[in-house]
Amino acid sequence: MSLSITLRFEIEDLLHEYAAVLDAADLDKWPEFFTEDCFYEVIPRENYDRGLPLALIRCESKGMLKDRASAIRDTMMYEQRYLRHVVSGIRVTAESDAGIFVEANYAVFETLVDTPTRVFNVGRYLSRVVYEEKRLKFAEMHCIFDSLLVPNSLIYPI
Amino acid sequence: MSLSITLRFEIEDLLHEYAAVLDAADLDKWPEFFTEDCFYEVIPRENYDRGLPLALIRCESKGMLKDRASAIRDTMMYEQRYLRHVVSGIRVTAESDAGIFVEANYAVFETLVDTPTRVFNVGRYLSRVVYEEKRLKFAEMHCIFDSLLVPNSLIYPI
Amino acid sequence: MSLSITLRFEIEDLLHEYAAVLDAADLDKWPEFFTEDCFYEVIPRENYDRGLPLALIRCESKGMLKDRASAIRDTMMYEQRYLRHVVSGIRVTAESDAGIFVEANYAVFETLVDTPTRVFNVGRYLSRVVYEEKRLKFAEMHCIFDSLLVPNSLIYPI
Repeated sequence: MSLSITLRFEIEDLLHEYAAVLDAADLDKWPEFFTEDCFYEVIPRENYDRGLPLALIRCESKGMLKDRASAIRDTMMYEQRYLRHVVSGIRVTAESDAGIFVEANYAVFETLVDTPTRVFNVGRYLSRVVYEEKRLKFAEMHCIFDSLLVPNSLIYPI
Repeated sequence: MSLSITLRFEIEDLLHEYAAVLDAADLDKWPEFFTEDCFYEVIPRENYDRGLPLALIRCESKGMLKDRASAIRDTMMYEQRYLRHVVSGIRVTAESDAGIFVEANYAVFETLVDTPTRVFNVGRYLSRVVYEEKRLKFAEMHCIFDSLLVPNSLIYPI
Repeated sequence: MSLSITLRFEIEDLLHEYAAVLDAADLDKWPEFFTEDCFYEVIPRENYDRGLPLALIRCESKGMLKDRASAIRDTMMYEQRYLRHVVSGIRVTAESDAGIFVEANYAVFETLVDTPTRVFNVGRYLSRVVYEEKRLKFAEMHCIFDSLLVPNSLIYPI
């Protein structure tokens, strides 16, 4: 593995900060992890594996991510609901002119008022990261989740 | 990120060994991860965010940690109960003369006799670590958990 | 810790690739993570701690791993079932002529058709890794799980 130590740490930090921002429900900061012309989707594993495009969330630019962040803020402020990301298995699977391809597993836990914490969504991140102004950003991110059941509440990014 | 590679690894190892000691229910070793005048608490996210001091566990010195460890040993020996920590997102958020500020996410799973494993407690560690006799120790540790429901059994450290 | 940086990364990558292969249900690749005369078991914590040999899965060579992989493929193709590994706390506990001793915690989540994702099995990996043709492989792997209840479906490797 020829990946430099610094780059490896930068990639780990990128994913950890990404998770921390989502856990803090700091949705204004969420789009800042992406490039202008990014692609972001939350898609069931079954669809992804079969090449079916149907996704739960699909954004084709940073602008669309910002719109989604605003929409969530406007509609979701009334309910108390915590998410918690546990991310593991971060690894680079390929490098090319198009960027660095990074995979990881995630488990997201949900805690609602007066209910015990439960498993919300598990799956993997498939991403392509690039440098933009000396900072690593997601040019592409597929959140591929295992469940075929769609939680009603999955309007938050993963 | 100017953090040295060695320090980064030392911090990761500290948190991983901490988790391993708790998972092994090796409570005698637990206080040894802390400085003499440490602060340790297990507190709901809601209280922490609002600045309310009410915590489930609150210890203001290593001596108090030792007392708690003894108390748990004396009362809990009769029941078979396993905990398992999964810790991710370890990252340094600041460095100062007061120490190194480290955050991480955790999920703790509980297994009781004759019941399937379940999610016990999830949240994040907010800690300040310092060197004591060339070993990194926690001078401060806040275990901030997401659930508003308090599990009866949460008398173990997290 | 005198462990070289490269070795540390190689060990992390080994465990992450191992998890990725199992999550992809790519069972042909699974035995390739092991040496010819490997030992692999999935054993309850209670039995392991007491020195009782009774294990859920026990393979004493790479050949036995291959047999098991074939058996699973032949019997399990009909059902849709996803596993997802979250691995944390990877750390080297000892080094000797016999190899490098590596521990980690794992949580495996299971998703069946039309059911929400649930916690399937949590525990720890206790392994001994060695170099074989310049690649790290498992010479020994104990998957020690916390639950005393045995899930019917635990025929997959962990």
